[in-house]
Amino acid sequence: MSKQSFQFQLLGTDKCGARLGKITTPHGNIETPIFMPVGTAAAMKAMTMEQLKSTGAQIVLSNAYHLNIQPGSELVARYGGLHKFMAWNGPILTDSGGFQVFSLPGRKVDDQGVTFRHTKNSKPVQLTPEVSIQVQNELGADIIMAFDECVEYPTTYQYAKEALARTMQWAKRCKSAHKRSDQALFGISQGALFDDLRAEGIKGLIDLDFPGYALGGLSVGEGIDNMKKVLDFSAPLLPDNKPRYVMGIGLPEDILEAVERGIDMMDCVIPTKYARSGALFTSVGKIRITNREFRNDKFPVDTSCDCYTCNNFTRAYLNHLFTANEILGATLTSIHNVQFFLNLTKRIRKSIKNNQFQTFKKDFLELYHRKDRKKTKGKSKKKQNG
Amino acid sequence: MSKQSFQFQLLGTDKCGARLGKITTPHGNIETPIFMPVGTAAAMKAMTMEQLKSTGAQIVLSNAYHLNIQPGSELVARYGGLHKFMAWNGPILTDSGGFQVFSLPGRKVDDQGVTFRHTKNSKPVQLTPEVSIQVQNELGADIIMAFDECVEYPTTYQYAKEALARTMQWAKRCKSAHKRSDQALFGISQGALFDDLRAEGIKGLIDLDFPGYALGGLSVGEGIDNMKKVLDFSAPLLPDNKPRYVMGIGLPEDILEAVERGIDMMDCVIPTKYARSGALFTSVGKIRITNREFRNDKFPVDTSCDCYTCNNFTRAYLNHLFTANEILGATLTSIHNVQFFLNLTKRIRKSIKNNQFQTFKKDFLELYHRKDRKKTKGKSKKKQNG
Repeated sequence: MSKQSFQFQLLGTDKCGARLGKITTPHGNIETPIFMPVGTAAAMKAMTMEQLKSTGAQIVLSNAYHLNIQPGSELVARYGGLHKFMAWNGPILTDSGGFQVFSLPGRKVDDQGVTFRHTKNSKPVQLTPEVSIQVQNELGADIIMAFDECVEYPTTYQYAKEALARTMQWAKRCKSAHKRSDQALFGISQGALFDDLRAEGIKGLIDLDFPGYALGGLSVGEGIDNMKKVLDFSAPLLPDNKPRYVMGIGLPEDILEAVERGIDMMDCVIPTKYARSGALFTSVGKIRITNREFRNDKFPVDTSCDCYTCNNFTRAYLNHLFTANEILGATLTSIHNVQFFLNLTKRIRKSIKNNQFQTFKKDFLELYHRKDRKKTKGKSKKKQNG
Repeated sequence: MSKQSFQFQLLGTDKCGARLGKITTPHGNIETPIFMPVGTAAAMKAMTMEQLKSTGAQIVLSNAYHLNIQPGSELVARYGGLHKFMAWNGPILTDSGGFQVFSLPGRKVDDQGVTFRHTKNSKPVQLTPEVSIQVQNELGADIIMAFDECVEYPTTYQYAKEALARTMQWAKRCKSAHKRSDQALFGISQGALFDDLRAEGIKGLIDLDFPGYALGGLSVGEGIDNMKKVLDFSAPLLPDNKPRYVMGIGLPEDILEAVERGIDMMDCVIPTKYARSGALFTSVGKIRITNREFRNDKFPVDTSCDCYTCNNFTRAYLNHLFTANEILGATLTSIHNVQFFLNLTKRIRKSIKNNQFQTFKKDFLELYHRKDRKKTKGKSKKKQNG
């Protein structure tokens, strides 16, 4: 069987603009909109790839920055690439490292690239567009990302403009450096919260003709309203026939807002990161499983969830595992949270198919925020009484 | 389907005395000799019960001492018992807590029981034969253990004699306190390294007629030669038609010595504990996966192993996971180590069936210690040269 090359098919659009699509990659298809769980260092935290598969994951994300430091991309290449190294046969996307280096203390950015100190031996390391692409070529993911300069929030117009200019130069250099036709290289648009810069960045990327486009520079503390503004402005500028990816989001509410604005792909460490601290997503809102109220609770995390954890264990058992410091607690909660996010995008796809995305969104959020509203009500009552 | 009650069938004996048997319990059968993985707090460390099943585990061990403190056995009982609470449908054995309390600092032993400080709130807790059995009745394991006084190594004859007398009184009280006919209560023999005390203890237990007998007070630092002496002396005193259990062992070499002396059941935390520190068992000896030599090693942990880890991952990948501090490292190595021990007892059973246990033992140990011998040879050569 010869491997499929990268393709995107737009299967339909909901009346509100939410898109249903299909991405074809050499390692299988992805139905969009899709949430991509993150296995930064070629491993999901506290989950095996078998367990990840059981959650319905269609693609997993890894990170060029981390893998370049440990174990080194040339080693991964010698082992047949990321798919084989971490035993995941499905599609993989690697991030370029742009987002990671932007938050390193003492980093130095110039037109050539970013220089920073190695986290382990403090030696200076330079990450350039060429290095990032070489690393990603060696890792061998199905989708790889251009190396960009992600700026802090808030930033000045002047700095955002400079960073955008560099990002555009780097996008060109990434394209030239890219050596593998079996990997799809996506461009990343920057421009902070400035519409004219966003427009300029997107136009520049389209001129370079990438097989997919990401909106970067979000999830840096700008808040959901700013994110919505950027998406409102930027998404319509992107071509219909290419996948659109918002990097680093997010919470269920962020995902719904992004999908509504025509976004196809999202990724975030939230499901696994929250899980390890005992914060679990349910259809009626987040719960903290370590709370005393769950010590004696016979229900599964979410009665409407059919993950391994919800099928087999009570909240009381999970509360016990966290209290007893059992690693298994992190595993079972990660499985649940990841599946929660994948179930959400599955239901999103169904609703778009039925041209009912906004009804689904409204119903989902009403149930999801019910607890918060109850709490607010209770509080305001108390105030009135007091 | 009505549940099977506890039974032991001796299926055959090798010419050396190694025994092949079958234990029937309400939650399924156990082929003996068997190694029992330990899930102290109603959880295998870093493994799900699904993963445990995949290793070929037939029974899992939990601990009354730990579960009495957290989450409390009455809570587990309300949740339908240990099997349901931790989602393991196979046989379970709970230890009485005798071994755990004997090592607590500041414990006070009298004829009534053992008093110690609660690890979390420092309140005094008393564990008595009656409490231990009540806890174990509430937990609902298929096999439960008498509450005994395990003495330190080395000890005086006088103290071992006193502790034995208490253990025998406690064995009687355990039998009286035991309320569930669906659980088999095993007696535990004490007596340290003193033959006459061991004989007296075993005779006393046989008079009480337990469905199975354990040799306790081993694995307390006495060393393999002392353990062999105790087994050489004690095992022949035990009735043929009841299962024999040596508690808390051990390493592969300990297991082989115990089986050769007619032991049917063994348990230890070694596979999972070693795994979390990166010490992995292979047919050619132990390896430390964190060693630099494994950074670039394309082989699985053990080429003769068919566990999930060996089927999917290289030593280089496991080395990477430990270097990157990924929890997945502990999971994958635990799966391997547990399966290694279960494969060992599987091969032991086959060799007994073929009346070739000692040949198997010799061949296994020769391969297993090959590396050590090579090292020793290397060292002595150096000495000669030096």
